[in-house]
Amino acid sequence: MSKQIYDRVALIGLGLIASSMFWAIKRAGLVGEVTGYARSSETRDTARRIGLCDRVCDSAAEAAEGSDLVVLCVPVGAMESVMKEIAPVLKPGATISDVGSVKRHVIETVQPHIPEGVHFVPAHPLAGTEHSGPEAGFAELYDNRWCLLVPVENSDPKAVAALRGLWEGMGANVEEMEADHHDLVLAVTSHAPHLIAYTMVGVADDLRRVTDSEVIKYSAAGFRDFTRIAASDPTMWRDVFLTNKDATLEILGRFTEELFALQRAIRTGDGDHLFDYFTHTRAIRRGIIEAGQDTDAPNFGRERAKP
Amino acid sequence: MSKQIYDRVALIGLGLIASSMFWAIKRAGLVGEVTGYARSSETRDTARRIGLCDRVCDSAAEAAEGSDLVVLCVPVGAMESVMKEIAPVLKPGATISDVGSVKRHVIETVQPHIPEGVHFVPAHPLAGTEHSGPEAGFAELYDNRWCLLVPVENSDPKAVAALRGLWEGMGANVEEMEADHHDLVLAVTSHAPHLIAYTMVGVADDLRRVTDSEVIKYSAAGFRDFTRIAASDPTMWRDVFLTNKDATLEILGRFTEELFALQRAIRTGDGDHLFDYFTHTRAIRRGIIEAGQDTDAPNFGRERAKP
Repeated sequence: MSKQIYDRVALIGLGLIASSMFWAIKRAGLVGEVTGYARSSETRDTARRIGLCDRVCDSAAEAAEGSDLVVLCVPVGAMESVMKEIAPVLKPGATISDVGSVKRHVIETVQPHIPEGVHFVPAHPLAGTEHSGPEAGFAELYDNRWCLLVPVENSDPKAVAALRGLWEGMGANVEEMEADHHDLVLAVTSHAPHLIAYTMVGVADDLRRVTDSEVIKYSAAGFRDFTRIAASDPTMWRDVFLTNKDATLEILGRFTEELFALQRAIRTGDGDHLFDYFTHTRAIRRGIIEAGQDTDAPNFGRERAKP
Repeated sequence: MSKQIYDRVALIGLGLIASSMFWAIKRAGLVGEVTGYARSSETRDTARRIGLCDRVCDSAAEAAEGSDLVVLCVPVGAMESVMKEIAPVLKPGATISDVGSVKRHVIETVQPHIPEGVHFVPAHPLAGTEHSGPEAGFAELYDNRWCLLVPVENSDPKAVAALRGLWEGMGANVEEMEADHHDLVLAVTSHAPHLIAYTMVGVADDLRRVTDSEVIKYSAAGFRDFTRIAASDPTMWRDVFLTNKDATLEILGRFTEELFALQRAIRTGDGDHLFDYFTHTRAIRRGIIEAGQDTDAPNFGRERAKP
């Protein structure tokens, strides 16, 4: 019982992230009771069948009532309406958090509905798989992954510390970051790469001269990973792009600018430009290895290489 | 001795691909003697030091003379001059092959110099790592990977069969493909994705507001794999793009067209367009799993997830 951080936690939305949270919480005994709610009755039925949550409720308000922590695990575009619904029943001193992939938009839409005496500590676990839904979760998802906490002005230090303890107890490494900086970093590391992967898969599918099976069969280096990324949850990603619009468009603008420069070098046969560019990016990679952020084991493309 | 396919094989160029071929050939006892040559005396010294090749020669002609198979393992842009140099010393009935990532250009530049009575069977093993050089090779590189043979008009069936036997003996799965089709398939599955990865890494490096360490630290899903791809050999990739210009530019043109459509959907807030697109690419991925070309194990981004 010494590990218990909250008496009661409510998970609103029961997809991959929430279900993994539940199993990770149970693994470490971090919470007395975990309640859960999903909008779809089918998802609630599945949750009850597989034992996901100690108690599955039939409304968000019922799940949130009396909870010490309520975590919004719904797509970013749905958070405001959930927050409005649960606001009247929240216990004084409770904490509201979320797991959204963008933070400025969540703060702008959710914070105005936080009642007096309730804490708000946005968060974003950098973890996921290409699967979604209540059956996709597993206790190890957050092990050694980052969870970024994005405290708002006047976030209560004790509320922040408790949430940090919960995420660390679920296996994650926790850091704090400012909301706009978070959204820019994620645009570079995740949002733009995802849109690029989606795009490349769409292009390959369009090319009728190259059959799908050939594209997959001969795609060990590069393309197969793109298809994996491009299988992620469509609703979640739609909301990410709509709500982190400015940073994503800025990165994509720079990306296409650079890509055009390289395309022109190819078209004009400017081998020196290409060579210098590739030498520079190789140096960046070397820097990453030297910084200890990855290994230089020669496993590029090999884990999934079996035909 | 029953496994031996050639009495003597020459490897011209001693980088990752050739050195892996040598170790794979030795593992299976496929060749009596393997000779080798590299343009750089430093590379030849390294090869002699680590026992790479049974005999390291000081000229390409010396290595090729008397060989039953000569494999051009130099960048695509260097193949023609090597071929001119070795043409006079080739044994009648010998076979010339290569390992270039593009095939039409190799055929156009190398084939005119093939002497009467010598066979020409271009090939392309779809394998590699982000490392290069004589010390990067290892015997398992080709295990369960594809090697595409691209026979030219009038390629001798016996010469093709022997080369197939060599690659299968090195662990690869072999298929035959027509040159232009090869170049288009590879543009989709490898060349365009590589240029895109190079570009994205360049963009991230440009963004001074996002420190390098942050980009790497928080990049488990997507970006870190991009940096791995972008560490590949600059000379090789320069030549790939310059010599598979048309197919690469065609794919990149389609890519930017699609990317612009998605950027516009983000800018105008057209969530339905994004949702439909992402749902479609997810279906493509599902098709891949159903076709047995990959597993649906939830390991997306997890192998390299340790911070």
